[in-house]
Amino acid sequence: MAKIVQKYGGSSVQDADSIKRVARRISRSRQAGNDVVVVISAMGDTTDELMDLALAVSPQPQPRELDMLLTTGERQSAALLAMALNDLGVKARSYTGSQAGVITTGRHGNARIIDITPGRIQASLELGNVTIVAGFQGVSQGTKDITTLGRGASDTTAVALAAALDAKYCEIFTDVDGVFTADPRIVPSARRIPEISYEEMMEMSACGSKVLHVRCVEYARRENIPVHVRSSFSDNPGTWVRSQEDVVKRKQMEQALITGVASDRSEAKLTVSGVPDTVGKAARIFDVVAEADINIDMIVQNISAVTTGRTDISFTLPMNDGKKAVDALNAAKDEIGFQGLLYDDQIGKVSVVGVGMRTHPGVTAKFFDALAADGVNLDMISTSEIRISVVVEVTMVDRAVAAAHTAFGLDTEGEATVYAGTGR
Amino acid sequence: MAKIVQKYGGSSVQDADSIKRVARRISRSRQAGNDVVVVISAMGDTTDELMDLALAVSPQPQPRELDMLLTTGERQSAALLAMALNDLGVKARSYTGSQAGVITTGRHGNARIIDITPGRIQASLELGNVTIVAGFQGVSQGTKDITTLGRGASDTTAVALAAALDAKYCEIFTDVDGVFTADPRIVPSARRIPEISYEEMMEMSACGSKVLHVRCVEYARRENIPVHVRSSFSDNPGTWVRSQEDVVKRKQMEQALITGVASDRSEAKLTVSGVPDTVGKAARIFDVVAEADINIDMIVQNISAVTTGRTDISFTLPMNDGKKAVDALNAAKDEIGFQGLLYDDQIGKVSVVGVGMRTHPGVTAKFFDALAADGVNLDMISTSEIRISVVVEVTMVDRAVAAAHTAFGLDTEGEATVYAGTGR
Repeated sequence: MAKIVQKYGGSSVQDADSIKRVARRISRSRQAGNDVVVVISAMGDTTDELMDLALAVSPQPQPRELDMLLTTGERQSAALLAMALNDLGVKARSYTGSQAGVITTGRHGNARIIDITPGRIQASLELGNVTIVAGFQGVSQGTKDITTLGRGASDTTAVALAAALDAKYCEIFTDVDGVFTADPRIVPSARRIPEISYEEMMEMSACGSKVLHVRCVEYARRENIPVHVRSSFSDNPGTWVRSQEDVVKRKQMEQALITGVASDRSEAKLTVSGVPDTVGKAARIFDVVAEADINIDMIVQNISAVTTGRTDISFTLPMNDGKKAVDALNAAKDEIGFQGLLYDDQIGKVSVVGVGMRTHPGVTAKFFDALAADGVNLDMISTSEIRISVVVEVTMVDRAVAAAHTAFGLDTEGEATVYAGTGR
Repeated sequence: MAKIVQKYGGSSVQDADSIKRVARRISRSRQAGNDVVVVISAMGDTTDELMDLALAVSPQPQPRELDMLLTTGERQSAALLAMALNDLGVKARSYTGSQAGVITTGRHGNARIIDITPGRIQASLELGNVTIVAGFQGVSQGTKDITTLGRGASDTTAVALAAALDAKYCEIFTDVDGVFTADPRIVPSARRIPEISYEEMMEMSACGSKVLHVRCVEYARRENIPVHVRSSFSDNPGTWVRSQEDVVKRKQMEQALITGVASDRSEAKLTVSGVPDTVGKAARIFDVVAEADINIDMIVQNISAVTTGRTDISFTLPMNDGKKAVDALNAAKDEIGFQGLLYDDQIGKVSVVGVGMRTHPGVTAKFFDALAADGVNLDMISTSEIRISVVVEVTMVDRAVAAAHTAFGLDTEGEATVYAGTGR
């Protein structure tokens, strides 16, 4: 009898009928002899509706109270799912994040899991219950206030519970069939990736793949929990995310250089021009941006022109933080002594990811050749051991993704894989 | 600086605007120098909507899970109210029933408060916060599951918190101006009762007045907490419910025999005919009904006809329990040996209530004379020390209420009192 954790997202529990459908699926897992813990998101648009209500009452809702409000959505779906299961003759109980022992930091709206004390969950499993936990939430250490965990949080809750309960694996049910070699809306011939390593998945998530949040994959890697990402609308196998040792053998057999191509249109580029080329000026720019709580992704510094003693520094950052960064830098303009700011949100990032590239030095050349052959100009470049990312004009993103996908032999031969949805 | 507890019902927090209005009222109480604890109901129809959702998922929702679901309504309004207060510059924090230390029995859907451990509430007050508690809910002793408290529960929570916190008084804000001498929809000349004793209010509530639930008044009486029932839509004084000693002096001065007239259309009458007039048969009837968990109100037994050795027994019970009672008695028909059952839900109960009648023996005669003069036939009669109730045909209820109201001199002289709504 295996202990497993399943997570269902909001699109899987949109209404009463879909809750009953999820209950039938869980019932099958239970009949197969598994001990099942379920982490559940709020129904469909519930969280957005609650947010609208909060904004109707207060232009800037207090974070503590917003967490109290928003967490009710998952509690509702958890209770409804338990009712539906009990109706099928499957014993079930729902628990809030707090009751389930999800202990977090006190940062409302973006708390992190510190610990899981799963005493009540274990007791409920021992009574033979399918045990349902409201996702996205916990309780702060010390102050015991209700917290929410920020983006991708229900997935992370599921993986953290799997680790705390020593579960065999964690299944993440979503509205797509798994992780694909590229976004099938861009590349219709994209294939489902049957297996991917934690490291590759982290790079994919960080570079725009929306199927799993990078924080969730990080957690799974640290705790070595296999994660199966699959569709809640079919019984097809999805994508297994697991340790490199378990995956790499198959990779080597296939001789695949690249596991997938990811793209991201959510970043913008900010160029600080005419920066005095003296010690500490560049560092001061990034201090100012960091103090504004903005994460920078890629950085390029031009070679200083000898005649002027000045240089240009460009970096990418989340588009949503664009105004904040411009304001912060302008406030420090005199101190740093730069000459101008150029903001460009008409960019996109395209990344190729794969452990195969470690042992194949020609990957960068192959990637750039493919882009050049298709007329795509590169604006910025960054690499890791298993990833190459480039920034291109936003209108060129689709073309670049397709070119890379073809160049690295990822296009499907024969029938296209079924692709059920549009990501989360 | 007085510590007070305020309770706002669902009709006072129907939408974002009414939540902001309630926040402004609380802010005024705070500015007047009070320490304020607020107990809040769910917004408008939220509870009904959640119930519909539960029934869409399961025809008979599990009580434990239903409590988990329904309690989210009050948590939402509590959080929203805290946001609105913080926006007004009034520090505020919301707490679930569980966080507020409302410890209950484990009977889901109809739990009772066992104890209140208000440590967190007190700590929050000491920090200068308006402290908001989600009404209608608690946490079960031992199992620590989320419970709901049954009807009238948010009022009871407010009174129980007032007792636990040693508050000066408890204000119940509702959509009517207080307790009236009769339902103003029936008697337009009905007057607001400025003061009423716990005992009278309990009789009024038990006899159909819907402004306060009898359980709440019982609790207030036991703990001797003055309760001020008033409108959330105006600043008018409402009705003070307090101990008899504090009220009776004014009553004596006014020489009022009767404080108010209550009416109730929610009961039905069941007549068991041809019951063998032998020891224990009547008792057996009430055993059977009690085993079906049905509360009986009034009982009448006819004098046994000597020739037949049989008698008829009639009693009133909640209309909703009619079918259950008929089924239970029919199942025991042979054992008890009665001849027939007659069910009648076309009845109503009219009651006059007042501590004044203790010392005035003519009240019953005056009441019955007034009814007779208006052509109202009496079907059943029951009395307590401070109440007389009669059962009449349902079509005669309004006439009987008006006749009693006039006979006991309760009609307004001059302008009618403002009446803001239609009860809860």
